[in-house]
Amino acid sequence: MSTNDLGVVRRTVHRPDPADVEALSAFGVATVHEAMGRVGLMRPYVRPAYRGARLCGPAITVLLQPGDNWMLHVAAEQVRPGDVVVAGCTTESEDGFFGELLATSLRARGCRGLVIDGGVRDVADLEAMDFPVFSRAINAKGTIKATLGSVNVPVVCANALVHPGDVVVADVDGVVVVPSGHVAEVAEASARRESLEEGKRVRFRAGELGLDMYGMREPLAALGLRYED
Amino acid sequence: MSTNDLGVVRRTVHRPDPADVEALSAFGVATVHEAMGRVGLMRPYVRPAYRGARLCGPAITVLLQPGDNWMLHVAAEQVRPGDVVVAGCTTESEDGFFGELLATSLRARGCRGLVIDGGVRDVADLEAMDFPVFSRAINAKGTIKATLGSVNVPVVCANALVHPGDVVVADVDGVVVVPSGHVAEVAEASARRESLEEGKRVRFRAGELGLDMYGMREPLAALGLRYED
Amino acid sequence: MSTNDLGVVRRTVHRPDPADVEALSAFGVATVHEAMGRVGLMRPYVRPAYRGARLCGPAITVLLQPGDNWMLHVAAEQVRPGDVVVAGCTTESEDGFFGELLATSLRARGCRGLVIDGGVRDVADLEAMDFPVFSRAINAKGTIKATLGSVNVPVVCANALVHPGDVVVADVDGVVVVPSGHVAEVAEASARRESLEEGKRVRFRAGELGLDMYGMREPLAALGLRYED
Amino acid sequence: MSTNDLGVVRRTVHRPDPADVEALSAFGVATVHEAMGRVGLMRPYVRPAYRGARLCGPAITVLLQPGDNWMLHVAAEQVRPGDVVVAGCTTESEDGFFGELLATSLRARGCRGLVIDGGVRDVADLEAMDFPVFSRAINAKGTIKATLGSVNVPVVCANALVHPGDVVVADVDGVVVVPSGHVAEVAEASARRESLEEGKRVRFRAGELGLDMYGMREPLAALGLRYED
Amino acid sequence: MSTNDLGVVRRTVHRPDPADVEALSAFGVATVHEAMGRVGLMRPYVRPAYRGARLCGPAITVLLQPGDNWMLHVAAEQVRPGDVVVAGCTTESEDGFFGELLATSLRARGCRGLVIDGGVRDVADLEAMDFPVFSRAINAKGTIKATLGSVNVPVVCANALVHPGDVVVADVDGVVVVPSGHVAEVAEASARRESLEEGKRVRFRAGELGLDMYGMREPLAALGLRYED
Amino acid sequence: MSTNDLGVVRRTVHRPDPADVEALSAFGVATVHEAMGRVGLMRPYVRPAYRGARLCGPAITVLLQPGDNWMLHVAAEQVRPGDVVVAGCTTESEDGFFGELLATSLRARGCRGLVIDGGVRDVADLEAMDFPVFSRAINAKGTIKATLGSVNVPVVCANALVHPGDVVVADVDGVVVVPSGHVAEVAEASARRESLEEGKRVRFRAGELGLDMYGMREPLAALGLRYED
Repeated sequence: MSTNDLGVVRRTVHRPDPADVEALSAFGVATVHEAMGRVGLMRPYVRPAYRGARLCGPAITVLLQPGDNWMLHVAAEQVRPGDVVVAGCTTESEDGFFGELLATSLRARGCRGLVIDGGVRDVADLEAMDFPVFSRAINAKGTIKATLGSVNVPVVCANALVHPGDVVVADVDGVVVVPSGHVAEVAEASARRESLEEGKRVRFRAGELGLDMYGMREPLAALGLRYED
Repeated sequence: MSTNDLGVVRRTVHRPDPADVEALSAFGVATVHEAMGRVGLMRPYVRPAYRGARLCGPAITVLLQPGDNWMLHVAAEQVRPGDVVVAGCTTESEDGFFGELLATSLRARGCRGLVIDGGVRDVADLEAMDFPVFSRAINAKGTIKATLGSVNVPVVCANALVHPGDVVVADVDGVVVVPSGHVAEVAEASARRESLEEGKRVRFRAGELGLDMYGMREPLAALGLRYED
Repeated sequence: MSTNDLGVVRRTVHRPDPADVEALSAFGVATVHEAMGRVGLMRPYVRPAYRGARLCGPAITVLLQPGDNWMLHVAAEQVRPGDVVVAGCTTESEDGFFGELLATSLRARGCRGLVIDGGVRDVADLEAMDFPVFSRAINAKGTIKATLGSVNVPVVCANALVHPGDVVVADVDGVVVVPSGHVAEVAEASARRESLEEGKRVRFRAGELGLDMYGMREPLAALGLRYED
Repeated sequence: MSTNDLGVVRRTVHRPDPADVEALSAFGVATVHEAMGRVGLMRPYVRPAYRGARLCGPAITVLLQPGDNWMLHVAAEQVRPGDVVVAGCTTESEDGFFGELLATSLRARGCRGLVIDGGVRDVADLEAMDFPVFSRAINAKGTIKATLGSVNVPVVCANALVHPGDVVVADVDGVVVVPSGHVAEVAEASARRESLEEGKRVRFRAGELGLDMYGMREPLAALGLRYED
Repeated sequence: MSTNDLGVVRRTVHRPDPADVEALSAFGVATVHEAMGRVGLMRPYVRPAYRGARLCGPAITVLLQPGDNWMLHVAAEQVRPGDVVVAGCTTESEDGFFGELLATSLRARGCRGLVIDGGVRDVADLEAMDFPVFSRAINAKGTIKATLGSVNVPVVCANALVHPGDVVVADVDGVVVVPSGHVAEVAEASARRESLEEGKRVRFRAGELGLDMYGMREPLAALGLRYED
Repeated sequence: MSTNDLGVVRRTVHRPDPADVEALSAFGVATVHEAMGRVGLMRPYVRPAYRGARLCGPAITVLLQPGDNWMLHVAAEQVRPGDVVVAGCTTESEDGFFGELLATSLRARGCRGLVIDGGVRDVADLEAMDFPVFSRAINAKGTIKATLGSVNVPVVCANALVHPGDVVVADVDGVVVVPSGHVAEVAEASARRESLEEGKRVRFRAGELGLDMYGMREPLAALGLRYED
């Protein structure tokens, strides 16, 4: 509701243990998403603004109004070292809400990057700074500073719900949100999954087929798969 | 997280007072959205499946897996008369999750309609039944019943967060979500807005300009608007 | 290959038995698609050009070049009463390849309608004539007559493979292609499916749940679905 | 440039002779577009907001900023009976810039309708009023009144250039722009084209093929079209 | 039809002569597409998953169900050194059907790459392995293994028809399909075209205009092109 | 109108002073767009064909017909050293209008690059040549040379109006059009803006917040922004 969700800045964020965030940051988005049971993924239209961008950290959330980036300045004050800014928007907008100056400001606060359901600009500078940004568009069109949104309320970003303090992991495969209370658990599940995958990788490299490794031949036959010459 | 959000059916839903829902149902989506302070709107890609579809009611929420409509059957049991089913999906999917048989089942339970971030089919039948459906696609492709989702957990549908019991209002202008604790308040604000608009409508019809009615001439001049012949 | 597929008009089309086409025409696209085992559906971006459009008939296939509708005139000569024209394009194009004059010509040949992976125009006239058209776009931009395509070669239309003589069924739910040798079989399977559905419909109307009708409770419990109050 | 194009309202519009506009209004968009030599068409993503919408009239042009509809109120004052409002936007926006109240105001000024490269709302009301609107989206999300655009400067709307006073014709097939100095000429060319088409229509109805009517057989053969049995 | 096309694995593939494939692999997609007479191109939404990806080889075809990658494991067994896997899907899906483990398995079988009308993940790993992949999306969302598709039946991939053994050529410009019986012929035509182009390139570099090189001035004048100062 | 705008080549282009173009070329698109007051930006779907592409120069404009690149050859003759070719199209088309041979020809004329509201091909070659191209698609599909367009008439390209001689600036952030009479003024405004930004950058780097630097705290409070712990 408007009186609750618009025009508010919550200063208290329950961030997970930094050691757990650090542990989680070792894994890619696809692995983390599997380890969580396949929930929490943003829509795949959010893409890295430059090749090689990658980030992991607890979210400072921002609810933007379309064409207005005022709340990103408000959010900057709430950033602590290691945080990631995650910005949703009350409607679809591909405006360029974010560029190099704001990146400079966020970096000075220790921010690790930005995920935004909107557009960004100054992409060559962002790449030169290596300030990782994931966005739905690249767009030179700037924004105004005229309307209130909010900071550190739950936001929906690219169809995923993000609470302040949730950990966001982003790489070339997409962006996934890990609830703040489950970071250690997901990091462990990711590690188990990677370890399992390493075993499979070795067997695949040696030429073993998934059909045999996973015991698929019988269920496929049971469903009626037939071979013809 | 998976152990909380996938594979669970919550039977208890806190629905708002039916009289408040009834009051709210008198207003269109654009009015309700304004009355809420411009939050809670689904992305505009969700469209009525047929001309004239319109609905208002508390949400039974469903989290679907792509290509799988099993949870809609699970949800049917949780529907009480007057409810609306709201279905999000863990990934983007335009499959036809819903058709005339499920509509028949939901209607028998008293369901007032469906909002789904996916595809539907049997649209001619849905129109003949006048079972209102709002969806992102129309698609004859059916789905399977193989994987678990959830019922009555918070879901994100077309980028809007919906809790079970929140009231969903949908018409040709889109779909808006009213938190269950604010229905009476939003209905009243909608009524005030409509009443205000009626006054403006009369003046507009008489030829008065918005420039004068809203006192815009001065701020426009202050910003530097200039007239040329 | 070019020497085979471009610049050729095949006059011989193996159409299925008209009685089988007639039988098939009783069913909607969603039913036919299910009866075929869920293959043969065009991409859902192909939509009826006007509300209520519906068609069923063997295909005269056309391979168009972008921005060029010459081959539709060549195809008109190959149409026999009851046929449907199905036009693919060698690249994506939303130009208006087809309008009221060509519809008049096709109707005079007994043609039952058009499915085209491109744009059409004169839509108000097409609706007034009730000449059913399914297209990817509505676009007033016309085309030229300068380059060769083909008629009655296999074409890909909206990602579905169509051979001349295959039966195309189209309605508000989409477009499905039934191979010419399977029309009777699919009509029978469609009838069986509809008859099965009628039984389910009666039970759903009486308030029976899919959970019970389909025996879903046990497999859901086996997968771990849990109910909470 | 900003000092010329933003923040200005031009009061003088050179409208074409109303008799010429009246003559032009007899023709559909596809005919007018052909009569102009296939220029001036807006992109086909601009669609009628309701079935049957149709308009023809000289343009009052508006340059909007995204998410801001202030200039539509400024434009209302410049409207004379018979005019059409044509609104471009400095960036892509699907916000709902326009609804029933503004339509009431424009109608009171004698306005014949709206073409907008943005979103609109209150679509059920617009249909009930039969106030024709062509837009890129339907969206309940409203806009603010905070930034200057312009009125009666040349605008680009859906990729077409529109000068104030140019005549805009819109129907189900799309939207076409006729320069103000060519309205009579285009109306005459449209009439010639329709008269030519009537002759062809009669021959097509009688079963004559385009191949023969247009003398296509020889050029097709010259290009190498071959027939196979 | 389902009994023919779903649930079948054809073990016999008629691959073209490897020397012809090798010859063809010297040419880019644009050249090959021209040499074929401009047919066989996939829709341009299929893009390389990483910069520099390129492949050429006979196709092992796979028909996938949405959200299910089981058949890719079945296909792995049918791969011979030099083959390319080409996967179509019965409906539109952007799920991540393919990642680094499957790539490891395919590479162990001698597979040269993948073209898929769906999504892929582990893109950083695929790039590190230099396993070329062309896809419609990048998406961390994984798939299940529950439903039958087919291997080595004709499939439609991004609107192009692919038979097992057809040679697929892919690079930054797109993906083109060369029928298995025409590989030598297309390679020769490609070579002729490149040789012709080299002559033109030299003349263009020297400043000669296409207007003169191609003798365009006369036909342009005949069509009425006029020059103004 | 057709007799004016189609089939014409204007040989006289009023190019701005090369020194002003040179001055402008020092700035990025986002800066130039701001300096102009946020007008003149092309739609963000126009993207660099390869990483690092960048251009700045006066426009030779081309109006293309869909699927036909003849006018690009006509335009080549009008190019003077330092010019950029800007091509609009009378309808939406993603065909590959432009490739390495035309780039070779344009470069020989001194052309600095291409902006096109259509597709291009031979992208690997374009990157190897470092001939900057900005386009709406990459597509191997070639075009024909059959219909007249125009050269050096005003064109709309990706929704921006471009007159011959206007300066086009393009980089990873997009494409902006500077009217030929305002180049010096915009270059100066860009320089002022950059100089201002350098001051802000230093302060941001030192950790100062935008809230303080821009004096935002008071207006935010006035609008009702509240802080909660």
